[in-house]
Amino acid sequence: MELLKNKIIEEGLVLSDQVLKVDSFLNHQVDPRLMREIGRTFASLFSESGITKIVTIESSGIAPAVMTGLDLDVPVIFARKRKSLTLQDDLYTEKVYSFTKKEESEVSVSRKLLSQGDRVLLIDDFLANGEAALAMARIVEQAGATVAGIGIVIEKAFQNGSGKLREHGYRVESLARIASLESGSVVFAD
Amino acid sequence: MELLKNKIIEEGLVLSDQVLKVDSFLNHQVDPRLMREIGRTFASLFSESGITKIVTIESSGIAPAVMTGLDLDVPVIFARKRKSLTLQDDLYTEKVYSFTKKEESEVSVSRKLLSQGDRVLLIDDFLANGEAALAMARIVEQAGATVAGIGIVIEKAFQNGSGKLREHGYRVESLARIASLESGSVVFAD
Repeated sequence: MELLKNKIIEEGLVLSDQVLKVDSFLNHQVDPRLMREIGRTFASLFSESGITKIVTIESSGIAPAVMTGLDLDVPVIFARKRKSLTLQDDLYTEKVYSFTKKEESEVSVSRKLLSQGDRVLLIDDFLANGEAALAMARIVEQAGATVAGIGIVIEKAFQNGSGKLREHGYRVESLARIASLESGSVVFAD
Repeated sequence: MELLKNKIIEEGLVLSDQVLKVDSFLNHQVDPRLMREIGRTFASLFSESGITKIVTIESSGIAPAVMTGLDLDVPVIFARKRKSLTLQDDLYTEKVYSFTKKEESEVSVSRKLLSQGDRVLLIDDFLANGEAALAMARIVEQAGATVAGIGIVIEKAFQNGSGKLREHGYRVESLARIASLESGSVVFAD
């Protein structure tokens, strides 16, 4: 997706060989027009997949997921990272390790929001080691629903996430694939 | 906003005199079409306010805020509730007490995202005691920017939030105002 790649080149900050900071348009400040285009692109890629629901993880996945849901006309669930007082029982819960934050957290989805017949599109802002996407997929499968596809905004293709996801048989579509962040510069994979 | 009020009546769960659970369309699962209408309504209410930026707090504020940003064509910042490895320095930080979670947390916004000339629209999913909105307002004012308005999806009008915000001189627009949750039923204020 050229618009996204240009934005990464213009505004992305390479903090290390592993970390790309895109706080100005995705992870802290959001560019709503770019999110709209991202949503349209995911909706087009998965238009034939019979999607009935989208699942993402708070917080950075929400904007692209909601825009995709708008175009596919399906509800969007954001998995919660912590339990709150009004979200306590009847949850599907999975552990997810964040390499960025160097900590394990739990993500959970209310059982009543997923059904056996659902065909679920998983959306996330970043794909690195695939931990977050695999946790979402396990939640969907706990519910007896089907992972019908995985849409990633930015994939760090030099890590092994997409390989792991494809080993599970999932279709993965990434809008920008980064081959390397070495020497402080972004090299795309294609 | 009639569409929102109908959704609250149909799908809202009154958990106590104080707590309304709207997990099926706002706080855990999101209805993208409803969010689009909410965004259009806020954009229309504040179309003459010269808004240059929207600020919300992760996570439930993001969907309505991004839809509003789409229509006003301005960037949307979501204040982060915790510091992460890629979000560590040069932050405006304020404390906010959550009566739902019964705990104090910190919200922060990167200094580089707010400028003196900014006219900021604050968006949040719920207004109860006004703690979250006041924390966002203090962050905006730390940056020397102006709070040009506050847009609330659901106001618990039986609590004192909007009064506190108006005492500070802020214009507050709530799309649904709840007068009471007593006896397990929702009574709107207007």
